[in-house]
Amino acid sequence: MSVNLSVFDAFHNIKGLKIGTANAGIKQTERPDVVIFELPESATTAGIFTKNAFCAAPVQICQKHLAAEKTKYLIINTGNANAGTGKGGYEDAMAICQTLADKKSVTVESILPFSTGVIGERLPLDKILNTIPAALSDTDENNWFTASNGIMTTDTQPKGTSVQFEYEGETITISGISKGAGMIKPNMATMLGFIATDAQVSKEILQDICSELGEKSFNRITIDGDTSTNDSCMLIASGASPIKLTDKTDVFYSVLKQKLEEVFVYLAQAIVRDGEGATKFVAIEVNNCATKQEALDVAYTVAHSPLVKTALFASDANWGRILAAVGRSGVENMDLEAIQIHLDDVCIVENGGRAASYTEDAGAAVMAQQELSIIIDMGRGSFSETIWTTDLSHEYVTINAEYRT
Amino acid sequence: MSVNLSVFDAFHNIKGLKIGTANAGIKQTERPDVVIFELPESATTAGIFTKNAFCAAPVQICQKHLAAEKTKYLIINTGNANAGTGKGGYEDAMAICQTLADKKSVTVESILPFSTGVIGERLPLDKILNTIPAALSDTDENNWFTASNGIMTTDTQPKGTSVQFEYEGETITISGISKGAGMIKPNMATMLGFIATDAQVSKEILQDICSELGEKSFNRITIDGDTSTNDSCMLIASGASPIKLTDKTDVFYSVLKQKLEEVFVYLAQAIVRDGEGATKFVAIEVNNCATKQEALDVAYTVAHSPLVKTALFASDANWGRILAAVGRSGVENMDLEAIQIHLDDVCIVENGGRAASYTEDAGAAVMAQQELSIIIDMGRGSFSETIWTTDLSHEYVTINAEYRT
Repeated sequence: MSVNLSVFDAFHNIKGLKIGTANAGIKQTERPDVVIFELPESATTAGIFTKNAFCAAPVQICQKHLAAEKTKYLIINTGNANAGTGKGGYEDAMAICQTLADKKSVTVESILPFSTGVIGERLPLDKILNTIPAALSDTDENNWFTASNGIMTTDTQPKGTSVQFEYEGETITISGISKGAGMIKPNMATMLGFIATDAQVSKEILQDICSELGEKSFNRITIDGDTSTNDSCMLIASGASPIKLTDKTDVFYSVLKQKLEEVFVYLAQAIVRDGEGATKFVAIEVNNCATKQEALDVAYTVAHSPLVKTALFASDANWGRILAAVGRSGVENMDLEAIQIHLDDVCIVENGGRAASYTEDAGAAVMAQQELSIIIDMGRGSFSETIWTTDLSHEYVTINAEYRT
Repeated sequence: MSVNLSVFDAFHNIKGLKIGTANAGIKQTERPDVVIFELPESATTAGIFTKNAFCAAPVQICQKHLAAEKTKYLIINTGNANAGTGKGGYEDAMAICQTLADKKSVTVESILPFSTGVIGERLPLDKILNTIPAALSDTDENNWFTASNGIMTTDTQPKGTSVQFEYEGETITISGISKGAGMIKPNMATMLGFIATDAQVSKEILQDICSELGEKSFNRITIDGDTSTNDSCMLIASGASPIKLTDKTDVFYSVLKQKLEEVFVYLAQAIVRDGEGATKFVAIEVNNCATKQEALDVAYTVAHSPLVKTALFASDANWGRILAAVGRSGVENMDLEAIQIHLDDVCIVENGGRAASYTEDAGAAVMAQQELSIIIDMGRGSFSETIWTTDLSHEYVTINAEYRT
């Protein structure tokens, strides 16, 4: 089940960037569970990672290697997160990097490892090591769709998008895939994202763009408020295009960033649309706050309220639960009279209580939609933030009560 | 369904304190939904209230009246919270106070009103006003059990406890009732608590005791992380006993406080045991933190994690979810190597990963219990906190998706 998530279709490859997949039989037998990205010499790479203190071994290594050396390979496995595995888990992830480095005669620091799946169990290391040759011999520019399947865990469908635009007579391509459906909350989610363009972009600017856009996309989604140990989002510029970005004052900087933002936001929202048990896709927009943090505090308090989420699941316009969540969000000295809350264009709260114009029928009509916005105007400043979330359904409980069985 | 919540049985009345109940047909037709406490001239009263900014009209009035005047009557209705009802809702609550005040020839400020139930609908005022005479004519010291039924909403069973102890040859009694099952989180819950003793206690000391014990009991429970608009906990000293407490240096102060704590904690835990859809009763104990707030942040992050809660429901020793929740709790500069996590006496995490001694069977045996403790040692200070919570079950989703239907 997913909410208005279109099937992954026509896709543009990124020149110079090859992808190979294979099945190691970690948890999946039918679809690939090991994916390798092979980057051309011209490529630059940037990344953002989970802020969970118990970040997984591959995330620790990724951050170290990304800072130390030009990246040549990304290697991803699903089925096991290699998190909470202590020193042994770190050695396992390094063994994967070393094996791949040896096979391709590159340094171990040029390899970035990624793992996602169950926490706390050691990797089936031999299975993965034995699968590396098959994945390497499979590498091809044309493998984005297979890779999008190869990074899935509890996802019900693969997620990807691709855009092209013209700049100075050249076609620039941006393509990306993501995965994630549970343990989704900012900073970041049990998610992986791999986005690439064929433009030439300096590593510093690429990292700035990745950080800025990650903040506006993958760090603005929440399904259950749980931050995973393994989140990583990588942005690769293959450099195959003659169009080169070296300075933020270039016109191309804003053109490329805007197109990249479309891809980041699409992939982030795709994770929410495919959220565990999701039946609704809900934007929570908080306007006119005194600070950015205040806007986020209100938005996340509403988004994480089990009572709001179950009301969304039931399509019940129980707006009192939204009001109660705003009230407990920890914002100091709220002016209750100034607060307005809308469901889409239906005003539900004003002057400290139910809006005079509100009717149960109008509220119920919005709540019955698959997609809706909860818009909260705090009336105390100029900061606004929007996040995206889902409802809390029986299916969510079923999926998470049965994950390991 | 509730977890090891014993049936409310032999109860001790509080001399001088009378309780009357009646049915106004607000939502219930079978059991009382209006309860009146009538306090003797000798009584003192203290209270603690929700910290939700959108606190309900009756809570606003309660706080004002409690500060202004000696309390003579408490009047409670279920079925409607009179919250989010703006100016009209405030006038409704005042009309209830005024009607009761007129009938008994007391000042309006000597009346404290309480409401619990659905948010955002105006009270059926006439029904309540018309029921006041019946509740008044019913007043009797012997009505605690009926009152405990009369304050229930989604509770599956009434909650009450009563203790007696001897002091200087006199028997002192403490009795209390509480209600609450959802929208339960500190500061405070959709809960009401009414606790009384026959000792004589000055109003100032009574308020200090109420605030201190509320912090250790009703402010240490969470079911779904939602803070209601209507929580109130009242402590009444009827003063019928010759034993008098006027100074905190009295030996009687610590004796009484300890006994009151037993009652506060019992009633708070009873709310968790009867939590919406609860199948588990879980203590989360966080030890050796740098500050009290840090201990609470870790405890609530674990308690509110939908992934931890669904694992508890499934009796799945998915300890990685506990580790991930600790990791995202926002505590700065965690020393992962110093952290230990136990399920009862089974060590699950040490040295940054799964404990060497851990076995799946040992973890599964603890998770299969109806009651268990998650004990987290942060190894960075001397502050400890314990909170109590439940799991997240299908029944929780069902109850909250169908609350208004």
